[in-house]
Amino acid sequence: MADNKDTDYERIIMGVDPGTNVMGYGMLGVNGSKITPIVMGVIKLDKFDSHYLRLARIFTRITALIEQYLPDEMAIEAPFYGKNVQSMLKLGRAQGVAMAAALARDIPIAEYAPLKVKQIVTGNGGASKEQVANMLCYILKMEKAELPTLLDATDAMAVALAHYYESKKPASISHAKSWEQFIKQNPEKLVKRKK
Amino acid sequence: MADNKDTDYERIIMGVDPGTNVMGYGMLGVNGSKITPIVMGVIKLDKFDSHYLRLARIFTRITALIEQYLPDEMAIEAPFYGKNVQSMLKLGRAQGVAMAAALARDIPIAEYAPLKVKQIVTGNGGASKEQVANMLCYILKMEKAELPTLLDATDAMAVALAHYYESKKPASISHAKSWEQFIKQNPEKLVKRKK
Repeated sequence: MADNKDTDYERIIMGVDPGTNVMGYGMLGVNGSKITPIVMGVIKLDKFDSHYLRLARIFTRITALIEQYLPDEMAIEAPFYGKNVQSMLKLGRAQGVAMAAALARDIPIAEYAPLKVKQIVTGNGGASKEQVANMLCYILKMEKAELPTLLDATDAMAVALAHYYESKKPASISHAKSWEQFIKQNPEKLVKRKK
Repeated sequence: MADNKDTDYERIIMGVDPGTNVMGYGMLGVNGSKITPIVMGVIKLDKFDSHYLRLARIFTRITALIEQYLPDEMAIEAPFYGKNVQSMLKLGRAQGVAMAAALARDIPIAEYAPLKVKQIVTGNGGASKEQVANMLCYILKMEKAELPTLLDATDAMAVALAHYYESKKPASISHAKSWEQFIKQNPEKLVKRKK
C-alpha cells in the first residue's frame, strides 16, 4: 500500500464501515481492471465519552481522509436491521455524519448490506470477518501481515471492493427483469428494420 | 421578526426539529432576559425521491442557516423511541447530518425529547402542537398570523426556547439532589468559619 500522491488512479472508491465504537475506512484505487488498496484503517471512538465528540470525530476524520485521498465515490456498509430502536438511532447518526462529509463535497454514496458485501466478495453471505479478510488478501494481493489488526478496516475495504464489482456490471442488464424491460431501458440497442 | 444583520444579540440559539419529510428550524436571539424570534421556517424534503438528496439538502440548508445567523448553540428535538428500527435509522441519519453541520463549526448541541420541550414551554408534557404554538405566540409576543403554516417550524422554535429556559437554570442547583451534593459540587459557596 502506498500514498496516492505519487500515483494517479482513474477512480478512487472510499469504503466506510460505520459504527459507534470503531469506524473502519479503506481507499481502493482503480486503473482499468487493476485494483490497488491505497490505505485502510480505523477511527477509534470508544475513548470519547460524549456522543457528540464521537460524531464530531467521525466528521473531521472522514473529511480529512476525503481531502487527502479525493475519492470519487463512497461505499458504505449499512445494516438495515438492528437489535433495538435506540442502537439504530445511534448508528443512523454515525452514518449520517459520515455521509454528510461526502455529501458536502458532492461525492455520490452507495449502500450495501453486510450480507451483500460478503456475498459479492466471498460468494457466501454468511462468511466470517476472517474469511472476508482472507479473500481480500487474495484479491488485492496483500500479505496477511499488512492487514490492520482491527477487522473493521478490512470490512471497509470489502465494501469498497463490493462497490467496484457492482459498478462494473452493466446496469441495464443486471437490473432488467425481462427482454421487454431491457429494450424499454435501452431503446438505442434495438436495430430498426428498414421499411 | 427581523434579520439579525442590523441587530446584535448576546447569544443566538438555533432550534432544529429534524424529520425525514420536513425539517423545522428557528433562531432565537437572547439579550439579557429579552428573547426575540429572529427567523423560523421549514426545509421541505418530500419533493426529493432520493434519501441522499434529502440528506444533502439538510446539510446544505442547515450549513447556510448557520453561516447566515451564526448561532452559538444548537438545540435539537430528538425522540428516543420510534415505531421501528427502520424509521429510527432514517431519523438518526437526518439528525446526524444536521448535527454534522453544527459540529463542523464547533457549535455545541443539546438534545431534548419532545415531551420535555412541551413540558418546559407549556408546563404540560402532553400538550398538542397547537398548544405549543399558542404558548410560543404568548411568550415571544408574536401574532398568530406571523407563524409559519407548518408546525414543524414552531416545534423548532419551541426547542430553542426550551434550551434557553434550561440554560438559565443554575446548573448546580437543578442537578444537585441534596445539600451534601450541592456543597460537594460548589465548595467555593461554603463560607469557612475563622478558627
